[in-house]
Amino acid sequence: MSAALSDLKQRLAEVYDLEKAAAIAGWDQRTMMPPKGAPGRSEVAATLSGIAHERFTSPDVGRLLDELASIEDELEFDSDDASLIRVTRRDWEKARRVPAELAADWAREGGRAHVAWLEAREVSDFSVFRPALQRVHDVALRWAEYMEQGDSPYDAFLDEYEPGMKTAEVRAVFDVLRPELTAIVRRAGEPADDSFLEGGYPIETQQEFLAGVFRDFGFEDGAYRLDPTVHPFATSFSRSDIRMTTRYKPTNLRSLWAGMHEAGHGLTYQGSEPSLARSPLYGNASLGLGESQSRTWENLVGRSLAFWRGRLPELQRLFPQLESVDLETWYRGINRVAPGLIRVDSDEVTYSLHIILRFELEQELVSGALSLDDLPEAWNAKMRDLLGVEVPDDARGVLQDVHWTRASYGYFPTYALGNVLSVQIWRAVEEELGDLDAQLEAGEFGPLYESLRRRIYRHGRKFTPMETLERAIGATEIDPQPYLGYLRSKVAGLQPA
Amino acid sequence: MSAALSDLKQRLAEVYDLEKAAAIAGWDQRTMMPPKGAPGRSEVAATLSGIAHERFTSPDVGRLLDELASIEDELEFDSDDASLIRVTRRDWEKARRVPAELAADWAREGGRAHVAWLEAREVSDFSVFRPALQRVHDVALRWAEYMEQGDSPYDAFLDEYEPGMKTAEVRAVFDVLRPELTAIVRRAGEPADDSFLEGGYPIETQQEFLAGVFRDFGFEDGAYRLDPTVHPFATSFSRSDIRMTTRYKPTNLRSLWAGMHEAGHGLTYQGSEPSLARSPLYGNASLGLGESQSRTWENLVGRSLAFWRGRLPELQRLFPQLESVDLETWYRGINRVAPGLIRVDSDEVTYSLHIILRFELEQELVSGALSLDDLPEAWNAKMRDLLGVEVPDDARGVLQDVHWTRASYGYFPTYALGNVLSVQIWRAVEEELGDLDAQLEAGEFGPLYESLRRRIYRHGRKFTPMETLERAIGATEIDPQPYLGYLRSKVAGLQPA
Repeated sequence: MSAALSDLKQRLAEVYDLEKAAAIAGWDQRTMMPPKGAPGRSEVAATLSGIAHERFTSPDVGRLLDELASIEDELEFDSDDASLIRVTRRDWEKARRVPAELAADWAREGGRAHVAWLEAREVSDFSVFRPALQRVHDVALRWAEYMEQGDSPYDAFLDEYEPGMKTAEVRAVFDVLRPELTAIVRRAGEPADDSFLEGGYPIETQQEFLAGVFRDFGFEDGAYRLDPTVHPFATSFSRSDIRMTTRYKPTNLRSLWAGMHEAGHGLTYQGSEPSLARSPLYGNASLGLGESQSRTWENLVGRSLAFWRGRLPELQRLFPQLESVDLETWYRGINRVAPGLIRVDSDEVTYSLHIILRFELEQELVSGALSLDDLPEAWNAKMRDLLGVEVPDDARGVLQDVHWTRASYGYFPTYALGNVLSVQIWRAVEEELGDLDAQLEAGEFGPLYESLRRRIYRHGRKFTPMETLERAIGATEIDPQPYLGYLRSKVAGLQPA
Repeated sequence: MSAALSDLKQRLAEVYDLEKAAAIAGWDQRTMMPPKGAPGRSEVAATLSGIAHERFTSPDVGRLLDELASIEDELEFDSDDASLIRVTRRDWEKARRVPAELAADWAREGGRAHVAWLEAREVSDFSVFRPALQRVHDVALRWAEYMEQGDSPYDAFLDEYEPGMKTAEVRAVFDVLRPELTAIVRRAGEPADDSFLEGGYPIETQQEFLAGVFRDFGFEDGAYRLDPTVHPFATSFSRSDIRMTTRYKPTNLRSLWAGMHEAGHGLTYQGSEPSLARSPLYGNASLGLGESQSRTWENLVGRSLAFWRGRLPELQRLFPQLESVDLETWYRGINRVAPGLIRVDSDEVTYSLHIILRFELEQELVSGALSLDDLPEAWNAKMRDLLGVEVPDDARGVLQDVHWTRASYGYFPTYALGNVLSVQIWRAVEEELGDLDAQLEAGEFGPLYESLRRRIYRHGRKFTPMETLERAIGATEIDPQPYLGYLRSKVAGLQPA
């Protein structure tokens, strides 16, 4: 190996370690830390991210990247080393654009906006959040000026989460989804009964069930944990130390799907090629591609008829109150379609409509077409338009999500892209594996995991999301039709006989 | 504040954050981490400690210390700022003496020796450990050559744990203890019955009891945790995030004292003055002084008759099998004196004899008077001499402790110094508080904690252990007599009526 490459790898490995130290501290903060540890923990997090940024953006890294340009040209595009140089150059050039003070301003204003948001939600009044949101919004727009200027002012934001993707590409997909999804919602008719999901469900028993599901999904013994938390998330410190969380409530069973969702994220970490360890190539190509996999295990597996045909008897043994619920009733209940106010409570069909709403509003906010003053009204009008529901108050409307406290524009669309991509990829896997339903019913997830690992997980961050999609299934475009076809056929199958 | 001082504080705060990030990762490793996370975790730990060391030992810090010399002279010796400059200069000069390669050698050989030690213990054969021990021993002696040369070659090792203390001072104390302790052991007579400590003790109930004890000791709600682990320890990331651990077994109650021991360490962290936060002054003046406080809460409180007069009824309610054990029997059992083979299982009287044995052997190893080949035999002879027991095999003899895998000479004596100091300090507190027994019986630990906090905990690392002792109780020497008096009177009180 060239001395420059070996030097670069050593530097990147140290940056990786610093980032993982921050991730460990973050996991601890969200699962274990006593509440009064928060101020000290913020200092630790700020120091680690500051030093990681300082070391990563050093001119020495740039000099090494220059030296390595000729080596990169000689290497196969898909090789680990060429990918490392390519991705590092992209990350380095982006990171160098942002002045340190601006990053600090953003973090500080984001922290303040978070406090204001909590207060505003408490009293359900957007105007309490408004001034702090304006400040962090202004910092975000200042930040965007330092970024490469695309066709749309929103491109810079999107690129943070979907490297290389353009606003126009996303809009093209969402423009197809918008009318089709509203039509599917109409066809879904009366919402099914899912009241059996509420009741007395002891947390220990839920944990026992999920532990078995995780094992069967293919997690390696001694290489992961599943813990309770308030806002479920997954993270990993190496492919042999994966941390997933879910939010258990003793009064309902909804944590099961939150758990399977995080399992999907966890499997992408576990499936990463070992050669990518301690490098910036470890991880997911994009948020959308990562989300496509959490959605795969949550929905395409975890809400499928085949999965529950195999697994409902076990759940009924653990929770005898479910013995009177037959498979059809169960399946219809866990797939209940009903337009509602809250994104995180929404079903597979309406979920993407909640996202389209946010995507449209964000573009207007970023372009200046919509002022923050008019945001609540615009939100409520779009809810009426897209989902046919009346927003009764800000808490259940414009104040429901945490994302805007950091003005993280561009984040929301990745959720819907994940939904779309999940089915597009699933179709290719189905074609490869044949009777996938029989495997899901039998609890044999090995071939599914292996196929997804080979197609996607092993690549980590080597490629952009579109490059990854091409390697995964040969597609060069995001195609919303498989997702729409899946939803149409699912909704048709949910109708009472 | 001078610009130099403010610059120094900022740098030290960042070093502190890096060290605490390593501590968080270490706590996670010992309580939560899935086993396969170990290799990745070692990398994170090595990177954090490398960067912390690099930043702390930078010439810039030396330059700031030079600039601050005149300011230091103008400040009160006891002020936070003067102490910060003084302690940082001491730490910096020591850290600069050691070449980075040597520190790396030590860490690497220590890791290898740890592996060899585990194997050797498994087969109870010192010769399996011997070659790896020789290598780490040699690195340790090389290290000592870089240190300031004291009157004894052992001084450099001791100074790592007891800043400023000399081997001769410790020897003077231990020379008094040696004959007196053996005499007290003889007077203790037949060991009392403590078989009631074994049996079925559900872990959840033990946790419940300890949680109540911790609350009463004075821990602040929402600022600490107590978790299970294999080898109990305490650590803290700030005075509002203190982590204690104990090792529960469902077959005996001994975790209670391990828990109270760690509570003592935890209280020293909580009692640190808030102004010392994020600085090298946060912590304990020395291992011995820290240990004096863990021993205080474990033994002087947790094995006292007064404490259990107040608390035994609660324990009996939680564990009905103890209802037939009266207070006298309980007290005699938990204070059972019996010479044995294993340091960590030993009682208050014999414990320090185990330490004196190690202290004597370590001095001979460091001076070269004893070769590693002869170590097991020397160990066994001293066990016979000091404790009157025959060592049946290496596993229960020379291989029992982990400390020598890192050649951490100088560490062991701090345990016995802790015992001695605990009673010396306790006598002063007793004089101040009057009827301490009545307070222990009533479960009122506020005045005790407050006195110890004011005398010791608040100072953190501002002073050397001897400077701290002087400020705590006005003493300028370590006096073994209070400790011996305490043991004599305790042993006398343990005799059956």
